[in-house]
Amino acid sequence: MAAIVFAARNGEAQIIYGSFAAPSNVRGALYPRIYPDYGVVFKIEGPRAKKVQLQFLSDAKPYDMTQNADSSWSVTTPPLVPGFHYYSILIDGFAVNDPNSETYFGNNKQMSGLEIPENGVDYYSVKNVPHGEVHEHWYYSKITGKWRRAYVYTPPLYESNNNKRYPVLYLQHGSGEDERGWTKQGHANFILDNQIAAGSAVPMIVVMDRGYAQVGDKPLPTTRLQGIKEFEAVFINEIIPQIDASYRTIADRDHRAMAGLSMGGGQTFYITMNHLDLFSYIGVFSGGGLADFHADTAYHSVFKDSQAFNKKVKALFFSAGTSEPAYLNATKEIHRQLDQAGIKNIFFESPGTSHEWLNWRRALNNFLPALFK
Amino acid sequence: MAAIVFAARNGEAQIIYGSFAAPSNVRGALYPRIYPDYGVVFKIEGPRAKKVQLQFLSDAKPYDMTQNADSSWSVTTPPLVPGFHYYSILIDGFAVNDPNSETYFGNNKQMSGLEIPENGVDYYSVKNVPHGEVHEHWYYSKITGKWRRAYVYTPPLYESNNNKRYPVLYLQHGSGEDERGWTKQGHANFILDNQIAAGSAVPMIVVMDRGYAQVGDKPLPTTRLQGIKEFEAVFINEIIPQIDASYRTIADRDHRAMAGLSMGGGQTFYITMNHLDLFSYIGVFSGGGLADFHADTAYHSVFKDSQAFNKKVKALFFSAGTSEPAYLNATKEIHRQLDQAGIKNIFFESPGTSHEWLNWRRALNNFLPALFK
Repeated sequence: MAAIVFAARNGEAQIIYGSFAAPSNVRGALYPRIYPDYGVVFKIEGPRAKKVQLQFLSDAKPYDMTQNADSSWSVTTPPLVPGFHYYSILIDGFAVNDPNSETYFGNNKQMSGLEIPENGVDYYSVKNVPHGEVHEHWYYSKITGKWRRAYVYTPPLYESNNNKRYPVLYLQHGSGEDERGWTKQGHANFILDNQIAAGSAVPMIVVMDRGYAQVGDKPLPTTRLQGIKEFEAVFINEIIPQIDASYRTIADRDHRAMAGLSMGGGQTFYITMNHLDLFSYIGVFSGGGLADFHADTAYHSVFKDSQAFNKKVKALFFSAGTSEPAYLNATKEIHRQLDQAGIKNIFFESPGTSHEWLNWRRALNNFLPALFK
Repeated sequence: MAAIVFAARNGEAQIIYGSFAAPSNVRGALYPRIYPDYGVVFKIEGPRAKKVQLQFLSDAKPYDMTQNADSSWSVTTPPLVPGFHYYSILIDGFAVNDPNSETYFGNNKQMSGLEIPENGVDYYSVKNVPHGEVHEHWYYSKITGKWRRAYVYTPPLYESNNNKRYPVLYLQHGSGEDERGWTKQGHANFILDNQIAAGSAVPMIVVMDRGYAQVGDKPLPTTRLQGIKEFEAVFINEIIPQIDASYRTIADRDHRAMAGLSMGGGQTFYITMNHLDLFSYIGVFSGGGLADFHADTAYHSVFKDSQAFNKKVKALFFSAGTSEPAYLNATKEIHRQLDQAGIKNIFFESPGTSHEWLNWRRALNNFLPALFK
């Protein structure tokens, strides 16, 4: 944290003591700049426009920016909620990226992002512990006729423990994002490193694959989790076998987990419930497509025989944030029905988070200790 | 390649037969769109401005875009040179990213990029051959007091050949870019995959590290290759030892190479000439800081004893493109002087390429067969 001069926070000249450049900025960019109360100053040099605004993807209304004497534009937001927030700058209504920000794939394009770290919280930070590696893994899908890329986390000592085999967590991103999200926005690799170092998670491989399976040039369906049938086929017949062939996995259901957020949570629930022969640990974070759930009929009535289900599934984990009411309510309702049906399940409620990555970092952090024990 | 309808290429309605969306676009974006003669149509929806222009980073002058009836803006460029071109859209003079483009870290920010594939050329494409893995590798630098990230390519079968050790190529990016450049813009991993499959390159580890070594909050020097002394210290004392500790390298000078482009080429020349005890293969691609070279006095007169030098250095490779005259001339002059001094060296001239990634893909592709044989 740069500590420079006590000054007004108008984004014009000096920088207030205790403020710091957002960690989501590109190297060297002083703005966006976070103040001790989580108010954030944005400053943009250059636009010649009638109106320049700051628009968070999750907000209905933009903040107006004002032009400074040096013709830059700036705005100070009210205190914001910690976490990761996609945003755009509106130049007379046209959404562009903030040149000061790294870019993050979301909403189907490369967007600006603001990371506001949670005060005193470091479970998702890079720390002085042994680090795993994130691999960029390419493979060909015969089903889609395309090359696909997965990001694969291998735990510390994977390279040197030559004969050791590991359990696998398949971890899916949400709609509009891609296989880069869980590490870049989610810091999943650091969450794993820190928990493995602390002994709260067992060393495991984490596969973060692409949640789309577009066959040829056929556009993705816009309904039913963007083509769950095609994705299920790729996932079961191609992703799992090629991961088991490429990494030192323990290739059985007792050592295979699946989790996902939003669309990926919906995909997880669908795929695992239809393939309980393959998975025994399941995480649904702010799951999409969970409405209209009926425990007695859902997924070929898999929840009917609670004793058999509880014997088979080692952990069934649901989560949602208190500031994403639609996801929270749908998730709570499933939790309620499953409890009623005698199906063992865990429900984690994340205080104050909405449909964004801090929510899902917490979900992952709470899910990991339940795995492979 | 989508083949749709024969039509005018005004970017308004229909799409010409044989045109295709640039591979540098985000998934699903139809523009920028490349035509058979390498003319490219750009189309932007939304700006309300007096003037919208297309600005390539390498060009002095922008192209004016014109507003269509549906209020989008478009332009058709004249035929462009194949390769990778950073660009911006100027909204009344303010440079922003094209929402249709992936982003690429260059010029110290995330920029739009246009990839125009070379017709019939596939040495840098993902192909049906065994694939290596690109690892995101984190480590702490005591010298800078910071966490650093390297991208590390391990060759096919690295994971399963448990006891095999490999030679290492250290491969540096240029100024304004970072450790992501060689794989994202350069496709270095696919170039390696393809050559290893063809048997023209031996299986090797490739380390693509960060070419900056900023100590604490001290700004990077703007001269002398942006702080070569600090980078040299980090490179020699931290990067090499931690790579040798983390990967199955053969940790001696006969199995260690270094190469780089532009600033990274200058760093390579400087570091290898000062540490010939550590490297025996050297590649300088469009090297920066090469002017005013004097073979008799350069680098503590290392070129004076040509017999000793030629015995020690297995390959000294230089390259530049014919459309980057300053780099070409400086490189040719070094080549001339070294030839005159009896120093064995290879000079590769890339026809028609300027200071961009196609130039460096070709350089790498020509350098690799000289390594570790």
